[in-house]
Amino acid sequence: MPQLGLLPRRTWAALLSQLLRPPHSACIPAVGCHSQGQGSLQVAEAVLTSHLKPHQEKPNFIIKIPKGTRDLSPEQMVVREKILDMVVSCFKRHGAKGLDTPAFELKETLTEKYEENSGLIYDLKDQGGELLSLRYDLTVPFARYLAMNKLKKMKRYQVGKVWRRESPTIVQGRYREFCQCDFDIAGQFDPMIPDAECLKIICEILSGLQLGDFLIKVNDRRIVDGMFAVCGVPESKFRAICASMDKLDKMSWRDVRHEMVAKKGLSPEVADRIGEYAQCHGGISLIEQMFQDPRLSQNKQALEGLGDLKLLFEYLTLFGIAEKICFDLSLARGLDYYTGVIYEAVLLQTPTQIGEEPLNVGSVAAGGRYDELVAMFDPKGHKVPCVGLSIGVERIFSIVEQRMKTSFKKVRTTETQVFVATPQKNFLRERLKLIAELWNAGIKAEMLYKNDPKLLTQLHYCENTGIPLVVIIGEQEQKEGVIKLRSVASRKEVAIKRENLVAEIQKRLSES
Amino acid sequence: MPQLGLLPRRTWAALLSQLLRPPHSACIPAVGCHSQGQGSLQVAEAVLTSHLKPHQEKPNFIIKIPKGTRDLSPEQMVVREKILDMVVSCFKRHGAKGLDTPAFELKETLTEKYEENSGLIYDLKDQGGELLSLRYDLTVPFARYLAMNKLKKMKRYQVGKVWRRESPTIVQGRYREFCQCDFDIAGQFDPMIPDAECLKIICEILSGLQLGDFLIKVNDRRIVDGMFAVCGVPESKFRAICASMDKLDKMSWRDVRHEMVAKKGLSPEVADRIGEYAQCHGGISLIEQMFQDPRLSQNKQALEGLGDLKLLFEYLTLFGIAEKICFDLSLARGLDYYTGVIYEAVLLQTPTQIGEEPLNVGSVAAGGRYDELVAMFDPKGHKVPCVGLSIGVERIFSIVEQRMKTSFKKVRTTETQVFVATPQKNFLRERLKLIAELWNAGIKAEMLYKNDPKLLTQLHYCENTGIPLVVIIGEQEQKEGVIKLRSVASRKEVAIKRENLVAEIQKRLSES
Repeated sequence: MPQLGLLPRRTWAALLSQLLRPPHSACIPAVGCHSQGQGSLQVAEAVLTSHLKPHQEKPNFIIKIPKGTRDLSPEQMVVREKILDMVVSCFKRHGAKGLDTPAFELKETLTEKYEENSGLIYDLKDQGGELLSLRYDLTVPFARYLAMNKLKKMKRYQVGKVWRRESPTIVQGRYREFCQCDFDIAGQFDPMIPDAECLKIICEILSGLQLGDFLIKVNDRRIVDGMFAVCGVPESKFRAICASMDKLDKMSWRDVRHEMVAKKGLSPEVADRIGEYAQCHGGISLIEQMFQDPRLSQNKQALEGLGDLKLLFEYLTLFGIAEKICFDLSLARGLDYYTGVIYEAVLLQTPTQIGEEPLNVGSVAAGGRYDELVAMFDPKGHKVPCVGLSIGVERIFSIVEQRMKTSFKKVRTTETQVFVATPQKNFLRERLKLIAELWNAGIKAEMLYKNDPKLLTQLHYCENTGIPLVVIIGEQEQKEGVIKLRSVASRKEVAIKRENLVAEIQKRLSES
Repeated sequence: MPQLGLLPRRTWAALLSQLLRPPHSACIPAVGCHSQGQGSLQVAEAVLTSHLKPHQEKPNFIIKIPKGTRDLSPEQMVVREKILDMVVSCFKRHGAKGLDTPAFELKETLTEKYEENSGLIYDLKDQGGELLSLRYDLTVPFARYLAMNKLKKMKRYQVGKVWRRESPTIVQGRYREFCQCDFDIAGQFDPMIPDAECLKIICEILSGLQLGDFLIKVNDRRIVDGMFAVCGVPESKFRAICASMDKLDKMSWRDVRHEMVAKKGLSPEVADRIGEYAQCHGGISLIEQMFQDPRLSQNKQALEGLGDLKLLFEYLTLFGIAEKICFDLSLARGLDYYTGVIYEAVLLQTPTQIGEEPLNVGSVAAGGRYDELVAMFDPKGHKVPCVGLSIGVERIFSIVEQRMKTSFKKVRTTETQVFVATPQKNFLRERLKLIAELWNAGIKAEMLYKNDPKLLTQLHYCENTGIPLVVIIGEQEQKEGVIKLRSVASRKEVAIKRENLVAEIQKRLSES
């Protein structure tokens, strides 16, 4: 459970600019190209020798963490906290309220919400009582919350882990436990106003994180379905073909076409017709073009979708973000519950040569409109239209982490401001009294947990962990009623009256 | 996964003083006396009529969340964020690094760590592959992390959910999913220095949260075991009898004695001897008294424990918190992994009449020393001594929530600073342009998602949600190149040049 940053904005800005400056020919990692740090999968899979009995020989014992999960080391936590802080700040800037839901739901709450992906849901063992499953996303629990509390409108954000039993061999390096940051607007409003805000939020977050150039692909489920209909896909196959088309960002059209024909039983001609549309992407002019398309313009659903997209682009222009948005007929989104506008943000790799096509390095945010989901939980089927987005923070963490490694900049994992040291033996009691005084004044302070540590060890500790100030107490100081205050960076020491110490430290810290 | 507060310290202090002011004859809730708000168990168990098929009749459908879990409404999230913020601030003040571990571990990682409580572990369904269990606490994952990464020392904090299948009928109202805030110090250090810091941290947090008077009971596992030995408990029954004694804060001695004799097969005489010791509690003088105890002083283990406790009390005196600590021979702590000092903090209910005994209203923090746990994960059995604490934030949330209800003070669930309004029709586009400008300047802003909302509706929204400023744009303003800026509290309006709007708002916000 990540905590948000307690550092002032200034500090975070400095950290970000330090971390995010892309090195020359920056290599943004593809899916799963995570750095392997402390507690990583690599370490996890190391085979040790033992078995879990205390005080016994432990032959053939393997200590590891579950497949597809990872620990976050303190270094990783610093980055994660800062990124989550930025994301949540943006959600709050747009007036969202916080919400938290349990990690697991009744199994039936999740049933029939994810169609083809329902096999990826983690079920809990039947230990008597209810049948439970770990949540697969934050959207279904939100819809369940709205229905259960009979809420007709709500703008909420939620940050939390979700779990999916992705097969690591099939989807290279994807995590089975990962963090999602969701923002959703529920309620009956005028068309496309909340939808436009969702796209604005994605732009603000991706710009703010300085991840490089990005693009948000936009489509509409009604256009997808309309396209399927006019291409001749049987209605019973809409969702299955939709799921295949969703793989277009990971697979070539050839492979997707093969799946549609060989696995999903689509006729080759129908698949080819879909293929023609799926190649279309562009701006507002493509919307106008599709309005004129001889086949698509015959489909009522598709026309509704096109009308909404046109209005959406008008609002996006007013928001000043239209150039970041691309109408893309190949965008399908795998989840079953979308009913209207859908979108997906991808980072564009900086082209190595002018004229080269920008390379898609993977989705970092996505979402869409789901107007029917809440009604599935409502006994009377009352609708609460919703639109929302999810930030793929794991991918963003990986990118920032990678840049950190490349920059070789050391990140502080503690915030300690003052270290309490002594050059002499038998000064533990004085140190304990002194450090308690600092803690009571709200000063972040540490000392070594040794009776008689060496002064050099103490000073090295400060240098290694980046503590800026040292307070030194010894016989001489005690006699004179003073304390030495040392700056670790300049190595300058000054004597300060014992009773002025806290005030002097607070003055120094407020200046830095 | 809770997020920490983004409000400046000042705001939080104001909120706390508003929330925590105890009403006359404040009723601090007992275990599980949670207020039943939105998304609560009460709502959850409401029987609705339907079944989970979209667009169908839904007869006999029950919508609820799993037993022992709850949603946190925006109001609850505000309180939770502020409390977690304070707790984490304290952990950071003491130099702790952050860590995150997966929600589930390999089943064998948790096996044999919880003795009598292992039946409360949630297992995941065997869906092929590894056997997994949800974590039961944050301590065992921390020990596993240390061993897996071969770390010999670390001071870390972790905030996260843990899961325990407590039977709600047996342990009234206890949650099955709850949040823990842990701080631990791992490493080979001189005796009792890190242990004393853990107690200091508990004192800082409980004082800082202004929960009223509290007391930290302290004991040592070696004293508990020594006491069992000299009372005549067979060594094979130590842990079982320990688990029984741990229930003394929820059950009377009579019931605990009955369990020891009838269920655990202890002879009545042995139980009575334990009963004599279990009544002893006091300060440093009780330690001296136990050093002289004719039976206990014959036990090597007990003497070691007493020696450490004596040193601990010396350090606690230097920290200025000795009067908050009570040596209590009945304290046992249920978890199996403790090896040395153990402690548990309880809130003391304000006595209604002078002379009345302060009433124990339940444990809000606990911890102890566990020197053998890491070795259980290390193939060569290398020890990494550890000591730590866990803050029982759920109990604290309940208390603060209860006070909020009693005080009837409204808590803002959003942080919106400015609302963009119009008195006229056809001003959606102007509002969209304006609000984007505010967002881009980092100002927290909202508007209604309607083409033509009524001005009164817009102003009511501000009053209901506590938004302090309104920006009003209409025909007249547009003509004059100005914007009206209205203070919701004073209802005063001033006209401001369109181009100066952002600067003027930022000036106003920095003043407030």
